[in-house]
Amino acid sequence: MYMHVNICLHPTSCASMAEIMSVLFFDTMRYSLKEPRHPASDRLVLSKGHSAPILYAAWAEAGLFPVSDLLNLRKIDSDLEGHPTPRLNFVDVATGSLGQGLSVAAGMAVIGKYFDKTDFRTYCLIGDGESAEGSIWEAMAFASHYKLDNLCAIFDINRLGQSEPTSLQHNLDIYEARAKAFGFETIVVDGHDVAALVEAFAKASATKGRPTAILAKTYKGKGFPDIEDKDNWHGKPLGDKADYVIKHLEGQLKNLSAAIQPFSSAAPEISLKVSLNEPPSYKLGDKVTTGSTPFTCDKSQIATRQAYGTSLVKLGNTNPRVLAFDGDTKNSTFSETYKKAFPDRYIECFIAEQNLVGVGIGAGCRGRAIPFVSTFAAFFSRAFDQLRMGAISQANIKCVGSHCGVSIGEDGPSQMALEDLAMFRTIPGCNVFYPSDAVSMERATELAAQRKGIDFIRTSRPATPVIYANDTVFEIGKSKVVRKSDNDKVLLIGAGITLHEALKAADQLADQGVNCRVLDPFTIKPIDAAGILENAKACNGKIVVVEDHYPEGGLGEAVAGAISNSTGITMKHLAVREIPRSGPPADLIEKYGIGSNSIISAVKSFA
Amino acid sequence: MYMHVNICLHPTSCASMAEIMSVLFFDTMRYSLKEPRHPASDRLVLSKGHSAPILYAAWAEAGLFPVSDLLNLRKIDSDLEGHPTPRLNFVDVATGSLGQGLSVAAGMAVIGKYFDKTDFRTYCLIGDGESAEGSIWEAMAFASHYKLDNLCAIFDINRLGQSEPTSLQHNLDIYEARAKAFGFETIVVDGHDVAALVEAFAKASATKGRPTAILAKTYKGKGFPDIEDKDNWHGKPLGDKADYVIKHLEGQLKNLSAAIQPFSSAAPEISLKVSLNEPPSYKLGDKVTTGSTPFTCDKSQIATRQAYGTSLVKLGNTNPRVLAFDGDTKNSTFSETYKKAFPDRYIECFIAEQNLVGVGIGAGCRGRAIPFVSTFAAFFSRAFDQLRMGAISQANIKCVGSHCGVSIGEDGPSQMALEDLAMFRTIPGCNVFYPSDAVSMERATELAAQRKGIDFIRTSRPATPVIYANDTVFEIGKSKVVRKSDNDKVLLIGAGITLHEALKAADQLADQGVNCRVLDPFTIKPIDAAGILENAKACNGKIVVVEDHYPEGGLGEAVAGAISNSTGITMKHLAVREIPRSGPPADLIEKYGIGSNSIISAVKSFA
Repeated sequence: MYMHVNICLHPTSCASMAEIMSVLFFDTMRYSLKEPRHPASDRLVLSKGHSAPILYAAWAEAGLFPVSDLLNLRKIDSDLEGHPTPRLNFVDVATGSLGQGLSVAAGMAVIGKYFDKTDFRTYCLIGDGESAEGSIWEAMAFASHYKLDNLCAIFDINRLGQSEPTSLQHNLDIYEARAKAFGFETIVVDGHDVAALVEAFAKASATKGRPTAILAKTYKGKGFPDIEDKDNWHGKPLGDKADYVIKHLEGQLKNLSAAIQPFSSAAPEISLKVSLNEPPSYKLGDKVTTGSTPFTCDKSQIATRQAYGTSLVKLGNTNPRVLAFDGDTKNSTFSETYKKAFPDRYIECFIAEQNLVGVGIGAGCRGRAIPFVSTFAAFFSRAFDQLRMGAISQANIKCVGSHCGVSIGEDGPSQMALEDLAMFRTIPGCNVFYPSDAVSMERATELAAQRKGIDFIRTSRPATPVIYANDTVFEIGKSKVVRKSDNDKVLLIGAGITLHEALKAADQLADQGVNCRVLDPFTIKPIDAAGILENAKACNGKIVVVEDHYPEGGLGEAVAGAISNSTGITMKHLAVREIPRSGPPADLIEKYGIGSNSIISAVKSFA
Repeated sequence: MYMHVNICLHPTSCASMAEIMSVLFFDTMRYSLKEPRHPASDRLVLSKGHSAPILYAAWAEAGLFPVSDLLNLRKIDSDLEGHPTPRLNFVDVATGSLGQGLSVAAGMAVIGKYFDKTDFRTYCLIGDGESAEGSIWEAMAFASHYKLDNLCAIFDINRLGQSEPTSLQHNLDIYEARAKAFGFETIVVDGHDVAALVEAFAKASATKGRPTAILAKTYKGKGFPDIEDKDNWHGKPLGDKADYVIKHLEGQLKNLSAAIQPFSSAAPEISLKVSLNEPPSYKLGDKVTTGSTPFTCDKSQIATRQAYGTSLVKLGNTNPRVLAFDGDTKNSTFSETYKKAFPDRYIECFIAEQNLVGVGIGAGCRGRAIPFVSTFAAFFSRAFDQLRMGAISQANIKCVGSHCGVSIGEDGPSQMALEDLAMFRTIPGCNVFYPSDAVSMERATELAAQRKGIDFIRTSRPATPVIYANDTVFEIGKSKVVRKSDNDKVLLIGAGITLHEALKAADQLADQGVNCRVLDPFTIKPIDAAGILENAKACNGKIVVVEDHYPEGGLGEAVAGAISNSTGITMKHLAVREIPRSGPPADLIEKYGIGSNSIISAVKSFA
């Protein structure tokens, strides 16, 4: 079977898996050319995304599009890009940053086994070089824990990395021992032996109670004279050797009978329509007591993280496909509230945040679920690359990060998210919600659930007063003015804990005859540039922004960007400007210059 | 031996390792109270940083500071914080984000075995919960590949995570199989049996050719009546049960003879003084040919990534402790140039960026090396959490990220760094260099090497003209005006590829009678706010910023922040505003609105 490996970049990385792809596409996988992403069909995740050309060649050979289209590889007007993306109708997730495929595949397999309860299988093709990525082993542990016998990982062990041989080269025994120890059924196979591969995939399909790893011994550039198993050919086109290699390969072509296998069962019909089954139900709080008890039963003083749990249950009441994933922090993030309400819809991912996000992305594929993924906001930094790739994957995933900023207190800087807004703001299309009370928190959860895409919601540890009436309507990209007079001197912008500090400062300043307007941005991305400009102009063009975050990339710079092309507006920016330390929340807030006293000083310095 | 576990938060996580810590501190480890971080003494990395209280208790018990100081735990004026940081003179690296300790320990062990060639040993205490982190397994693979027999990983397998039992609970067989498969000598031991632990550590010290994993079966809250091995006690103080527990523990105290072991050998004297052994040696280029060949032998057209390799060799000529680490991208980042010059000072870390950065941080500890760590800039996102913790660790590490932005071309968005500036800018104290030609690149490498701290240098894939004379002096936080007249209408700010686009635009605009000033910021953090303000004012307060990066958190927002408190200055911001695709570099630069034509339009729109 001729797989067109010659026309492309990365020909040697494609050649090592030519037989694997042939067997998958024309013997093992059950799929349809009419609907390559049909929810009941088998999935293939090409974790080694640089071998995209052979994926494209396989679909062309199967008949999805003309073989001649392959010549458009990497052209600016072709979706046959250097690495696969879901711009192509046969790709579920983008790959190309290595080691991410298996987590995503495991997320798909979780859906198949536990939610769709359909018999589709998920295949994931992994390079040996990328198997050095820890994310692969996070996914392996997860897949065996959840007994994902509908998942098959194929390791293409071609011995050579990009710049030198891999650490384990062709030591198949070690690969087998590792995969076994991580709970996989293992099959060692000659990756260039079609009959052996057919048998291996059949054995994998028949294995119950655990996932299977097919460990294929292969050769990079297999069948390319003078190139096979040689170093220094990674990624390179064959150049003037191409004709000779093609001629040689053509001489080896065999006509095997092959056909596309159809899938049999259907996937259940589901809807992603979702809303809170009842509105927020809190009491307006009266005064700010920052740094008080972290959570409470007082309906007027409540941590946004606690309201997250409440809101997720309300969403789950209207849609059974709202799924919660957490990394052993559920009693801190309050995803535990959801687990208690709907134990079957909670998936514990243990302490492995890369896999946590990857599984969430996989679960959201093909519109099968609304995945909410939670951990400490700081620990989402572990999965930045997964989130970056998630955007290219057109992923639908809702990230909820708790314990932001110095206001967490005594646990100290390792647990404080002070760069999470910067991180999530860079993700294309990601909304960044930063609710300041329980009412807006519930609506943030709902708004995130109702759209397809990546969303981040930043929640706070301490209890804060409820400031919005239960019937308040929130919109993405629309700020709220929460304090206002006819004679405001300065516009204060804060979010979360610092919105409450701004309100406290405004109270004290008002007592001193200086009225300030206070604005809650609600979403940091998109930022309400129009609302900010309008209110800044009403306040003599003076803004003080205060955030529980480092100065870079957060609320302050979002506002600075929003006003940068306007004249007559100036801004002072209060943020955490050094590595903080352990201490009581209220003390830290003042020490790092984001409390009411600092806000008052900033306002006065405008005079 | 009474370890003061009762006074703290996380008492149960401390109790499970009380005997381990006792044996380490009073039998196994060789160290000095006079200089707890002496370069020849054994190292201890407490990867499970939430058990900080027992680390503090052990040092107090050893006599480093009064036991009564332990009562200051987590107070705002005490360095005995919730998680350990190097503010304490006995801590090398901050921990508290889980799963990071073993990479750092492995970096220390590399220094001991291959560079210092001293007999210090490195111990790393790992929680069972955190062993789900893939970074642990990256470090395991690395440690066995490099035969780090001076490294001992102790797994405290106490069965219980934060919110529920761990995935493997007390299944020691699986832990052992995994550690064995990853190349470790393994010793399964009762973690509460002091004699068995003494023997295990002795066996570890005697093992040659591979690292050892001591797999200690322990109980969370060991010896606490009604609490031991019970769920729901993670992190919690004992409250009103404290007195009872303490009384019970006191009844079990035994007076074992114990003494601190001294270290015998000395560490070699080294210096971190470093400079380029010869100045840059290029020819000024004449015209911009963006998107031309990626690298070249033309001394006037050279990619900054290529100049990186050259400059690193020049540094290596003046200091043998300049070490290079890469993640199997050395032929792309040009760290290979260094490997060719100094093969013994290059450490291949394979495709595992979390471990790559962790090892670099470990290698830089105690002032033993100047670690340069390189990969594609996009893939540093994999190690964001390590970098975040690196700042708290006061780490000395130089990160060099290649292949930034859409200008890499056909490989597509998965390989393009478009958020790296935002990420590194958030790291406290991190300098962010973005050199625009080979001369400034060499000086960026030198400036980074000469200071202690985290630095990031962003390099570009395509060749670009040399614009600075070889004797140009560069400073951190000081921009350069590279085009200027007496009658400049707009200030153009670009960096890397976009500086050359700005120059091209300025040429064309000058032909049309519109003079523009062009500024090269050199460092994006710190940004030269004074230089930008001064030059903006000289250009009628009009700025166009153009960057090969997403709009958030990069050069544009750095400039927006710098001008935000000034009046009369407005800014237009050109950046990559959607997920890009594969294509030729020059086409992508124009398509995504960061090329000379877009700059010309932005300038004209100011009219």
